[in-house]
Amino acid sequence: MENKKEIIAGIIVIGNEILSGRTQDTNTSTLSIWLNSLGIKVQEVRVIPDIEKKIVDTVNDFRKQFNYVFTTGGIGPTHDDITASSISKAFGLEYGPHKEAMSILEKYYKPGEFNEGRQKMAWMPTTANLILNPTSGAPGFNVENVFCLPGVPSILKSMLGGIENNLVGGDPIISKTINLRTVESEIAKSLSKVQNDNQEVDIGSYPFFRAGKLGVSIVLRCPDINKIEKCNLEILNFLKDKKIEILENI
Amino acid sequence: MENKKEIIAGIIVIGNEILSGRTQDTNTSTLSIWLNSLGIKVQEVRVIPDIEKKIVDTVNDFRKQFNYVFTTGGIGPTHDDITASSISKAFGLEYGPHKEAMSILEKYYKPGEFNEGRQKMAWMPTTANLILNPTSGAPGFNVENVFCLPGVPSILKSMLGGIENNLVGGDPIISKTINLRTVESEIAKSLSKVQNDNQEVDIGSYPFFRAGKLGVSIVLRCPDINKIEKCNLEILNFLKDKKIEILENI
Repeated sequence: MENKKEIIAGIIVIGNEILSGRTQDTNTSTLSIWLNSLGIKVQEVRVIPDIEKKIVDTVNDFRKQFNYVFTTGGIGPTHDDITASSISKAFGLEYGPHKEAMSILEKYYKPGEFNEGRQKMAWMPTTANLILNPTSGAPGFNVENVFCLPGVPSILKSMLGGIENNLVGGDPIISKTINLRTVESEIAKSLSKVQNDNQEVDIGSYPFFRAGKLGVSIVLRCPDINKIEKCNLEILNFLKDKKIEILENI
Repeated sequence: MENKKEIIAGIIVIGNEILSGRTQDTNTSTLSIWLNSLGIKVQEVRVIPDIEKKIVDTVNDFRKQFNYVFTTGGIGPTHDDITASSISKAFGLEYGPHKEAMSILEKYYKPGEFNEGRQKMAWMPTTANLILNPTSGAPGFNVENVFCLPGVPSILKSMLGGIENNLVGGDPIISKTINLRTVESEIAKSLSKVQNDNQEVDIGSYPFFRAGKLGVSIVLRCPDINKIEKCNLEILNFLKDKKIEILENI
């Protein structure tokens, strides 16, 4: 288990609507939770505007830094959908109608309804691998370690199953949460000691408000369940000494 | 109006809990909407882990690129709260107890309750300007063009009013939304023509599902209301020709 190396990913959220605050991004947490379950850790997310140079530069930066890169948004039929042409440019690949994508979309629409706008959704790097879309026809695509998905959350979700076999993950990251009726400053020093003694477990501390009362979630994350259990015990010990109420330990 | 230059901002969301998918970030849209209202456009958002080098590098990159930089998260009392020390490092400033912050927190807590964990919340660049926190005492801080805010959404919101006077915005960005009962591919070509003829208006097109039916939102954004109205008219004209139902034009 110790020999498996960490597999990391980056997410690029493409779209002015997220930067303007008009739309709340939810794809990041969908992708992160799904990737975690495959043993892939999301290391960075960037939200960038619909500007070709920005997309090209970010994709080229990310695909060298991370094992996998996921983009969301910008693959529809309108003028502001420039992800496919930008990815072609980033990889120096021909941008044009993708044979298989054209054939999928031709069958998807009624005769005479496969208009110019819809045909644009089949334009991408002509050598890309398709990511099938069971919800609305228009496929995403994959070039090397970069996977391009749509921005509409329900459609994105429906496409993830089709990619899983193309991803090689590490050990799945296990997490444990301890919810407490306390405030962070009461446990900060003891928790810091536990973190120092357990460097391989990633310990997070997050304040919350619930039913009008303050609380803290301690979250332990590590691929090794034994290391999590050891950490958990050390935390339970200091909580007992401090007489702090445990709401959940899950 | 034409002479005012565009004022741009970057947001750095600091926290493993967002990258793991455990917590859904909502601060980005809060900050973006608020900044828009001040005539400041958010140009990029990065979500990064609680790793000092990553925070230092991202802050130093952003503060040169953007007029204003906002960080969220990592200013609490626990071991994973490393924003204040990282910002000190990024600017080459002394990290230590901030006199005014110490005095605020001393008054905020009952005698004897201002423990080590709580004192840590007053540690920051010693020369920073404070951002007052009307909700929970512990202040944020500002160094040059970088503003450091907490991660808890309700606390962050309560602190924005205190910063407004320190920000110089451009012309407020006005937006107009036209919601349609159609699909993107029906309007793609005509909308593309309108965008080409109105380069200064940022036109976005976003598909949606509502009450089980497909629709499209067209969003026009520009500081100049006249340019938006001209665009709006051109769009209404082609919608009429195409007999597309308008749900809202607001």
